[in-house]
Amino acid sequence: MNIILIEGSEMREGKITLSDHRAAHIIKILKCAEGDSVKVGILHGKIGTAQIVGLQKKFPFKVELIGRVESAPPPKEPVDFVLALPRPIMLRRILSQIAALGVENLHIVNANRVEKSFWNTSLIEKEVFTEHLIHGLEQAVDTVMPNIVFHTRFKPFMEDYLPTVSARYTHMLLAHPGSTGGLGTLLGRNRERVLVAIGPEGGWVDYEVGLFRNQGFSDFNIGCRILKVDTAVVNIHGRIMALFENVA
Amino acid sequence: MNIILIEGSEMREGKITLSDHRAAHIIKILKCAEGDSVKVGILHGKIGTAQIVGLQKKFPFKVELIGRVESAPPPKEPVDFVLALPRPIMLRRILSQIAALGVENLHIVNANRVEKSFWNTSLIEKEVFTEHLIHGLEQAVDTVMPNIVFHTRFKPFMEDYLPTVSARYTHMLLAHPGSTGGLGTLLGRNRERVLVAIGPEGGWVDYEVGLFRNQGFSDFNIGCRILKVDTAVVNIHGRIMALFENVA
Repeated sequence: MNIILIEGSEMREGKITLSDHRAAHIIKILKCAEGDSVKVGILHGKIGTAQIVGLQKKFPFKVELIGRVESAPPPKEPVDFVLALPRPIMLRRILSQIAALGVENLHIVNANRVEKSFWNTSLIEKEVFTEHLIHGLEQAVDTVMPNIVFHTRFKPFMEDYLPTVSARYTHMLLAHPGSTGGLGTLLGRNRERVLVAIGPEGGWVDYEVGLFRNQGFSDFNIGCRILKVDTAVVNIHGRIMALFENVA
Repeated sequence: MNIILIEGSEMREGKITLSDHRAAHIIKILKCAEGDSVKVGILHGKIGTAQIVGLQKKFPFKVELIGRVESAPPPKEPVDFVLALPRPIMLRRILSQIAALGVENLHIVNANRVEKSFWNTSLIEKEVFTEHLIHGLEQAVDTVMPNIVFHTRFKPFMEDYLPTVSARYTHMLLAHPGSTGGLGTLLGRNRERVLVAIGPEGGWVDYEVGLFRNQGFSDFNIGCRILKVDTAVVNIHGRIMALFENVA
């Protein structure tokens, strides 16, 4: 945790009292003492600093803080993703990573090569996946949760849902091994909104690729190496951000 | 596994007989039948295709193949890393990921903020870490193992070892939150060899940053978000590759 995230209702006239895993973290991991300061942020709100004014170091842990939140959280980045539902262990990791990277919107869709059993995961429930998003925000010092939307049917997602959001994007890109273009030739010279689709293990089937193209997606590749989906998400995010930085 | 890796000695006049986890993978995960082809590669050697000519589908699994290896593996990428030793669970993941990304050299060093207990891991033994590198090669369809070197003492690594390899690199870069430069302004317009150093959780201490600068490293940042080291490695690798691609 590089920031202690709290609900707005937990701060009253600058005072915060913690008695859960966050108190344990401040005491056992950060090894803070009275008088130390920690970074705090209000979920969906501002970021600031709070000083520890009271501390119960033995179980049950308790930490009392006084602070102010004045700074805006970092802005979200302009790269959103569409992912075929990955296996749960990988989805957990992706949720934390995209929250840390500053992704604003993540769409998780079914696909022909998604194993049906993957949909049995509790991770598609908001109370469960939120925990992993919070880990990412705590890592990256952010307070604003990404929007995660699960789409259990591919065709309605492509034909009914996508057209309602596609106008937001200057570029819609399909990571497709074997295509010839790289990102550098597809992206413009400005920091524009991009939606990137990444397939399941084994890739999209031809029918799915066809629907992406019908909706205006352009193929790109990142070389001949086949990456796992979590590696691909983080790597492609970095590639796009570097191109935008480079032309700023 | 997107390629079945074998030792050179396992192929005789084009014939390969597998009876270990690779046979189980071909039968249970890839669900291959007699007559199907799979991609094969000789460790440190060439890549080709082999046809399944015999199959024992029940335990103990056995697969007989006949094939040829004729193609060179993909070239390694020009980005090497120096990492402060991360916690073992993270190191495992990083080893697979850097093998998949085509990293050629990885140096893992001690640092002030590395927990001493991390050095007790069996992952610093070649027989143990090799397994994770092979997972990465199997994922990315490569046959050539990255070089992994562990350095248990920071100062000798910086002052004695680094000068013996630094001439290989056009750029030596230190990921340092709070520095002002981005990668786009530091890297040249060509695909040049780059060495990137990434610190432990909590960062390098000032003394360590000083030694990096003495050895010719330049600071860069990738924005204000603090990433976990595995996310940072994959993201920074992507950023550098995108800049090189963009100017090709």
